[in-house]
Amino acid sequence: MSDVRVTVQRDSEREERVVTTGTTAADLFQGERSVVAARVAGELKDLAYELADGEVVEPVEITSEDGLNILRHSTAHVMAQAVQELFPEAKLGIGPPIKDGFYYDFDVETPFHPDDLKRIEKKMQEIQKRGQKFVRRPVSDDAAREELAAEPYKLELIGLKGSAADAAEGASAEVGAGELTIYDNVDAKSGELCWKDLCRGPHLPSTRVIPAFKLMRSAAAYWRGSEKNKQLQRIYGTAWPTKDELKAHLEFLAEAEKRDHRKLGSELDLFSVPEDIGSGLAVFHPKGGVIRRVMEDYSRRRHEESGYEFVYTPHATKGKLFEKSGHLDWYADGMYPPMQLDEGIDYYLKPMNCPMHNLIFDARGRSYRELPLRLFEFGTVYRYEKSGVVHGLTRARGFTQDDAHIYCTKEQMADELDSTLTFVLDLLRDYGLTDFYLELSTKDPEKFVGSDEAWEEATETLRQVAEKQGLPLVPDPGGAAFYGPKISVQTKDAIGRTWQMSTVQLDFNLPERFDLEYTAADGTKQRPVMIHRALFGSIERFFAVLLEHYAGAFPAWLAPVQATCIPIGDAHVPYLAEFAAQAKAKGLRVEVDSSSDRMQKKIRNAQKAKVPFMIIAGDEDMAAGAVSFRYRDGSQKNGIPRDEAIAEILDVVERRVQV
Amino acid sequence: MSDVRVTVQRDSEREERVVTTGTTAADLFQGERSVVAARVAGELKDLAYELADGEVVEPVEITSEDGLNILRHSTAHVMAQAVQELFPEAKLGIGPPIKDGFYYDFDVETPFHPDDLKRIEKKMQEIQKRGQKFVRRPVSDDAAREELAAEPYKLELIGLKGSAADAAEGASAEVGAGELTIYDNVDAKSGELCWKDLCRGPHLPSTRVIPAFKLMRSAAAYWRGSEKNKQLQRIYGTAWPTKDELKAHLEFLAEAEKRDHRKLGSELDLFSVPEDIGSGLAVFHPKGGVIRRVMEDYSRRRHEESGYEFVYTPHATKGKLFEKSGHLDWYADGMYPPMQLDEGIDYYLKPMNCPMHNLIFDARGRSYRELPLRLFEFGTVYRYEKSGVVHGLTRARGFTQDDAHIYCTKEQMADELDSTLTFVLDLLRDYGLTDFYLELSTKDPEKFVGSDEAWEEATETLRQVAEKQGLPLVPDPGGAAFYGPKISVQTKDAIGRTWQMSTVQLDFNLPERFDLEYTAADGTKQRPVMIHRALFGSIERFFAVLLEHYAGAFPAWLAPVQATCIPIGDAHVPYLAEFAAQAKAKGLRVEVDSSSDRMQKKIRNAQKAKVPFMIIAGDEDMAAGAVSFRYRDGSQKNGIPRDEAIAEILDVVERRVQV
Repeated sequence: MSDVRVTVQRDSEREERVVTTGTTAADLFQGERSVVAARVAGELKDLAYELADGEVVEPVEITSEDGLNILRHSTAHVMAQAVQELFPEAKLGIGPPIKDGFYYDFDVETPFHPDDLKRIEKKMQEIQKRGQKFVRRPVSDDAAREELAAEPYKLELIGLKGSAADAAEGASAEVGAGELTIYDNVDAKSGELCWKDLCRGPHLPSTRVIPAFKLMRSAAAYWRGSEKNKQLQRIYGTAWPTKDELKAHLEFLAEAEKRDHRKLGSELDLFSVPEDIGSGLAVFHPKGGVIRRVMEDYSRRRHEESGYEFVYTPHATKGKLFEKSGHLDWYADGMYPPMQLDEGIDYYLKPMNCPMHNLIFDARGRSYRELPLRLFEFGTVYRYEKSGVVHGLTRARGFTQDDAHIYCTKEQMADELDSTLTFVLDLLRDYGLTDFYLELSTKDPEKFVGSDEAWEEATETLRQVAEKQGLPLVPDPGGAAFYGPKISVQTKDAIGRTWQMSTVQLDFNLPERFDLEYTAADGTKQRPVMIHRALFGSIERFFAVLLEHYAGAFPAWLAPVQATCIPIGDAHVPYLAEFAAQAKAKGLRVEVDSSSDRMQKKIRNAQKAKVPFMIIAGDEDMAAGAVSFRYRDGSQKNGIPRDEAIAEILDVVERRVQV
Repeated sequence: MSDVRVTVQRDSEREERVVTTGTTAADLFQGERSVVAARVAGELKDLAYELADGEVVEPVEITSEDGLNILRHSTAHVMAQAVQELFPEAKLGIGPPIKDGFYYDFDVETPFHPDDLKRIEKKMQEIQKRGQKFVRRPVSDDAAREELAAEPYKLELIGLKGSAADAAEGASAEVGAGELTIYDNVDAKSGELCWKDLCRGPHLPSTRVIPAFKLMRSAAAYWRGSEKNKQLQRIYGTAWPTKDELKAHLEFLAEAEKRDHRKLGSELDLFSVPEDIGSGLAVFHPKGGVIRRVMEDYSRRRHEESGYEFVYTPHATKGKLFEKSGHLDWYADGMYPPMQLDEGIDYYLKPMNCPMHNLIFDARGRSYRELPLRLFEFGTVYRYEKSGVVHGLTRARGFTQDDAHIYCTKEQMADELDSTLTFVLDLLRDYGLTDFYLELSTKDPEKFVGSDEAWEEATETLRQVAEKQGLPLVPDPGGAAFYGPKISVQTKDAIGRTWQMSTVQLDFNLPERFDLEYTAADGTKQRPVMIHRALFGSIERFFAVLLEHYAGAFPAWLAPVQATCIPIGDAHVPYLAEFAAQAKAKGLRVEVDSSSDRMQKKIRNAQKAKVPFMIIAGDEDMAAGAVSFRYRDGSQKNGIPRDEAIAEILDVVERRVQV
């Protein structure tokens, strides 16, 4: 046995080791139970990989992104084995890791029933306990075909070996450009071959290493993602490095499901997406309409105070405008198809408002005295999202941007960006979001317009402006659109999910394309700088984010009904009606529940409607000219004089706080 | 000569007369200079018409609609004669009377120059003075062809004799279904034939009877209205029973031109219709945006106070929805062409909001307790108006309706219509319109859905509701849409033009088509009554009407800039800036003109911008802590303490009055 020299790299530390021939990565990281694979010369390998002289080896922790993917991929194999043990006729599709988990597709006669999933899960636990090894075995194409003769989809994958097109369809976990490999699941004690799969790996050393998993649901899925192919049955699962993490994840999912804006939107009668109108095109019901209008009105007032001017532009336009702007060159796929008017002129729904705002800038000569000119519009745009990705209000085919375009001089740019970003963050805070970080998207060296100097200067300005906010700043190199660098505001909601909210984007391109000019103080014509700026991005999406953030329990200033008045008996209805009228006169949104329901039912209804305040009155309150409060948390406060009660609600509304 | 018995009918009075054979209408009405023709057995005849036994004859006064048409038609002949005397190669097209005047089309090499019009007008005056007679002469088709061999367009008309298709293109004045006639212009003294035209008549007895006329302008027009035909040159003229009426008409036109909303929209920088976007699709500039927003905000507040609930719906939808509503059956021509999405599903821009509001009504079960349910939306709709009829903001291809649909029980219908109409009229008065009449459109017996009884009851309810307003009520029999009767509010603007504003329309059809239901108090399912109600009709159009009504000088509450501050010298700029800040803090829209212009120029600029108040300050004002007012009428008031000045403006704004 000759010596093999290897370098073990952990983060920035390097350690030279001399081992004997045949030493595996597992030997190298023996005793380190959290190491599930190795990265050798940049490539992921099984721990069983035998090291060669001169190689650099990194341990892959189960908690790392790669480690989690390996864990989830191996769990997918265990699931597939369990399925075939229980359903021997099931044919295998593909089974990659995905975010938070994995799936595997099966060709089966009957879709899986939730009870099937329980049985499969039980079988997986058995397999996990058996402690099977995952053993890698290179095979020739022909050998693979023979071994997998009973698996038609795998045979198809072998035929696709190295096909780039296939990578996009999730099959890259099975076949790559190089040699084919099969992973055998081998019983650790008996050495018996329990199951095998065409797979590139790598995998965990053993099923024993799988700490915690759960099957989630099954759904139909077309083979290789095409509606032309056969429909298979996909089972989704999740797997985690610890039982606690699995539990936390399941709790998060339950919480997210409770907060799902589509579910709450229907339960609270806020909006719907009628089948007769079409996917991604929502209607707002009266209660949702109130919230949206309050959101818009407040935003409008703040914009007005900050020197924005309001414009209106149509939703349809000649294609000519989008030729001029370049959208038809680089955004046509995202646009609705044209409508032909006036014998041969193509009209399009607008996917963006900017070109129309440029026409308003350009409607007459502009002087430097008018700059910065800030044009604002609640502009509804239409984008042809593929039907598969449309999701409630967060990914829609029609939505309203709170869209502004700022035209300023180069000298004004830094101050304007600074005040814009401050404005944007302040306003988001007013709506109750508080946890932010910023992202700075910089030049894609392959795809940009304008000079390097202009980019550098603008990017540096953006960076300074962003740093001034004292928020975490995450670089996004190459993430800018071709026309200029961008800051985006990322915000975390009440259950820790990140949403991209506002964007502040510099544009070197459109002012050129539209030949925008202003007359400078010295009488010369100059090109203005253009800043695109959306705060909510889409009102519908922001509405959905707030709905999920607050789990429907909006703070009183946004709540469609701010207080529900509940009489203890019928005799107290007129008294509360008078109270409600007084409150309405102060601008509050107050209802009286004068239905025939009993009081406890009324309280439950108001709780279900997530009304911020319940105002209850009976004989005692009436005699004292008072009312009783019942809060969302169930606590109660009795005998509040009516004026004080109205003042308390008004105060909470005006301070825009959550109670 | 035997006797001829005729009846002369004037309004409801009948007079039996016995005259000799050969007596003409002219003889009958001798001495009555205002009578220009006769109506015999319902047909219009020249005064030279010889009466036959038993005929009923009515005089046609020059001031009546028929009389004005005859006057204008004869003036068109005089113009054509003048043109051919001056331009002998000009070939005749057609020359009918139109509203307020007439036109005649000519095939000429060179378009007419304004100077040509002056020469033609002069020649017409000569002809008028010559006192030529208009003499009717029946001719056979062949004779007509021979006589008019040099007039190719007339030959074409002879070929079209009796063709219904042609009537629509304005040629019905020349050829009818019966015999052809030629009118000769004959010199009264010499009896010489001066000119002739293929024409059905009738005409004035003589050119001398033409009291007052003027040529207005010339424009290109396709022969028989089709772009496939040759372009002719059309001259427009006007003619009136008195010189005073002509003068008043010309003054009205000048006033209307000054008030043209397209002209004012550009002068005051309110809106534009960019060529790159397309005809009928306007953009609102910041100043127009302010006016529109104030209009909308006030309307919204009033609607809220009146129990309307606000919804939002998208601008595009699957065609399915408009199949359900029936729009694709009876309104497809008015809709934009479809866009095909998702491999084969047609989507349309919405021409109306009602079907979407029905989906919101139908999104969940409704109880009688929720009725009347009033759904309101500022809903932008798109209608494919032919490019020829599109006109600024008053006839656009995209516009925003202040659209509401009220769902109520049958028992609530009368009260709801009553309060709706009162609400509508009140609100129009708040915007400064005061001169109204109502129109009641009733069933077209050929085209309606629903039972006769339902129509009768609904129409009677509408009539009672309309009469209660104490406004003139004009019947419009057969004018209702097939789905229900309607009240429309007609209003006169500052220069007396009538605009159809609000409509209140009952609908028996859509609730059926959408199978809308509510649960009644007794637990049964009932069909609600639906009321369509638009107040402005279109915000853009109402904006244009107000712009023309006020000639751009909006009352302060609507004015984009309510006060312009003008410093006498540079030293007074900071003082006025402080004043402006105080006024802004009170919600006023105030600007300081700190440009380098001289004071007189600044005053002229503010006048041109039609700003309600100018606030001027110099040393004296500054020393006294005061300002001076200059009003739109040029009057001035000095030394007003600043607080009082702000209070005065606020008062005018709050009372929504014009100063």
